[in-house]
Amino acid sequence: MDWKEKIILDVRKAKEASFILSKVKTEEKNMFLNKLIEKIEENREKIIKENQKDVDKCLKRNYSSAFIDRLKIDEKRIDKMIKSIKDVIALPDPVGKKIWETERPNGLKIERIRVPIGVIGIIYESRPDVTIEASILCIKSGNSVILKGGKEAKSTNLILVDIMKSALMETKLPVDSVNIITAGGRKAVKYILKLYQYIDLIIPRGGESLIKTVVENSYIPVIKHYAGVCHTYVDKDANLEMAWKVVLNAKVQRPATCNATETLLVHKEIAEKFLPKMAELFRMHKVEMRGCDETRKIITGIKEATEDDWYTEYLDLIISIKIVNNIEEAIEHINKYGTHHSDAIITENKESAEKFLREVDSAAVYHNASTRFTDGGEFGLGAEIGISTDKIHARGPMGLEELTTYKYVIHGNGQIRE
Amino acid sequence: MDWKEKIILDVRKAKEASFILSKVKTEEKNMFLNKLIEKIEENREKIIKENQKDVDKCLKRNYSSAFIDRLKIDEKRIDKMIKSIKDVIALPDPVGKKIWETERPNGLKIERIRVPIGVIGIIYESRPDVTIEASILCIKSGNSVILKGGKEAKSTNLILVDIMKSALMETKLPVDSVNIITAGGRKAVKYILKLYQYIDLIIPRGGESLIKTVVENSYIPVIKHYAGVCHTYVDKDANLEMAWKVVLNAKVQRPATCNATETLLVHKEIAEKFLPKMAELFRMHKVEMRGCDETRKIITGIKEATEDDWYTEYLDLIISIKIVNNIEEAIEHINKYGTHHSDAIITENKESAEKFLREVDSAAVYHNASTRFTDGGEFGLGAEIGISTDKIHARGPMGLEELTTYKYVIHGNGQIRE
Repeated sequence: MDWKEKIILDVRKAKEASFILSKVKTEEKNMFLNKLIEKIEENREKIIKENQKDVDKCLKRNYSSAFIDRLKIDEKRIDKMIKSIKDVIALPDPVGKKIWETERPNGLKIERIRVPIGVIGIIYESRPDVTIEASILCIKSGNSVILKGGKEAKSTNLILVDIMKSALMETKLPVDSVNIITAGGRKAVKYILKLYQYIDLIIPRGGESLIKTVVENSYIPVIKHYAGVCHTYVDKDANLEMAWKVVLNAKVQRPATCNATETLLVHKEIAEKFLPKMAELFRMHKVEMRGCDETRKIITGIKEATEDDWYTEYLDLIISIKIVNNIEEAIEHINKYGTHHSDAIITENKESAEKFLREVDSAAVYHNASTRFTDGGEFGLGAEIGISTDKIHARGPMGLEELTTYKYVIHGNGQIRE
Repeated sequence: MDWKEKIILDVRKAKEASFILSKVKTEEKNMFLNKLIEKIEENREKIIKENQKDVDKCLKRNYSSAFIDRLKIDEKRIDKMIKSIKDVIALPDPVGKKIWETERPNGLKIERIRVPIGVIGIIYESRPDVTIEASILCIKSGNSVILKGGKEAKSTNLILVDIMKSALMETKLPVDSVNIITAGGRKAVKYILKLYQYIDLIIPRGGESLIKTVVENSYIPVIKHYAGVCHTYVDKDANLEMAWKVVLNAKVQRPATCNATETLLVHKEIAEKFLPKMAELFRMHKVEMRGCDETRKIITGIKEATEDDWYTEYLDLIISIKIVNNIEEAIEHINKYGTHHSDAIITENKESAEKFLREVDSAAVYHNASTRFTDGGEFGLGAEIGISTDKIHARGPMGLEELTTYKYVIHGNGQIRE
């Protein structure tokens, strides 16, 4: 059997498993999740040992420390995995939920019912925490999952999938609910992306080049979780105390996340009052500032922000700053340079706030709060498989409900169309 | 300016128009629709004259009469266009609707609000009724539209777009809310499909090869409206009187539609009682039958149904018939050969019905009713842009709500993330 045949076999089995999984009761899915916690606890040492093989190989090949950090699994990471499984157990099961119903004059009863999507393909880099987190969200929502992870995490992913498969087997769910593709290497990605007969949705998780490859090669619908170039705009009617506090939080509380603010926009009428203390706070927190010409007249000695800066997701303690003439210019800047992720306005002016919230074309728009809140947990939606920057199907935090679709179920008593 | 530059200019203007359109009130959109009716009434003669040019060219080139029929606009077709505009005026505007809200322990008020998707690209064949119907649904839901229609309808489409643009202008909506791409010819389709910076969603309307081209070349999300290989399964516990009536309706009431039944599945225990009269009814209505071996023992003299038949959408007075051993075989057949569109079971057995409704993986599943009901109007949802056979974003009839997405709007008073 060549690698293509192996992949076809895997995705076929995943499709079959998805039909069974779609009928499984919530308690059975939770039984699997509980069994999975048990199995992970039992296999802590083994997981860490397998992971060490991956880490050692990458160390030899001089991968960056940030890369190794994302790859490495220690006791703390395992605790985090278990915590995330417990969180998913606690979440309500969306499958079977009636989301709309009507009775027609001819007596037809029409219901719209949430059902699983089917088979979900996750294409990701060498982050083994995604292996567990994506799989449990897919299974809890009744979908089977095809995992195609980075080759550097191969040993780790294999042991994790092995553990999931044995937990599935022991709780009598189809073992093919979780599948990992190792055949075919990098070529396999492009091949998988054509298999629309078997895979219903692709979720890429990773950097820009991975997402680009997926979007440009997929025949299967894709939901993208792109970068977050997020903005906070300090309006002329801002409460300055609030603005200093919120902007600082949006930048420094966890700069490596997609919902951290990357660009600060300031109304020109307030810039001279607002920026000096903001700059002082940024310096105290070791934030590198890059400014437009007007900004650099107020905050001296900082680097110039280039056109590229406005497009950049730093994921670091760096911020670009621009002074704008009015709210319209702020909105225009955000819609042009942003990634439609999360953007905030700080103002006491209700009209300006409403204008901003309506006209900024992003998944999450904030009035007087930190962009850092865009997160399934913070929104009260539970765990998420990512933050969608797409507009189709799911926008913003993508949780269990967004991993389902619906079907129309119609009950009649012999109705025919006239 | 070459054709690529022309297209870029058009889609850019469409994007700008979409920002304005997203803020427009329902009354203003309805004012445009009313003006459009007026303009179409005024231009009846001119529309028919322009359409005649297209028809004449196609007649010279010996296009099929079915093709000419879809292309041709007469007074009756214009009446139908006006009727569809009136229907859309009467529909509620989904934009701005709050679909979910929550208040978090930290005081953040989070709302999920329906907003337009942005720019929608419609790629279709030479059916000028789509030009009007797709455009008015997009505009009523706050989206601007890029039309790329078949070249055979060029004159008709140009006059229709011209009329829409003048109605937009006179009611002070952005004229670039509707755009037609004529530059670049066939090459333009593949080019448009890469412009994800400007176009948010592609809806292809047409035959299999058109949809295939779109799916295989698009970097933009696509919602497919594929063929309808729909089934009716007559269970062993069916009420036979009902089954005869419903199956006949599902096949003959309008065979050229996607929700007409193409394959009849019959439980073996009831086949000998059910099929003879069914065959008689089919013969009365000039329906050609093609059967499996078992069927041909009961209905003699009919053609054999080949493997290809089970996959075929006849869109004609032809039906394939298969006798199955049990409900499981019926479900398996539907999930394998169907297009996940509309499928029905006829049975008095509630358990069998529930099993069928749960396990058949289709947009619409029916118990004791004709598959012909899958339609936005029949479901009480209003006009539709098509019947989605996809699972992502929209499934089944795709109306105004499915032409929107949502955004999270968050009100705070200085909240920061700890």
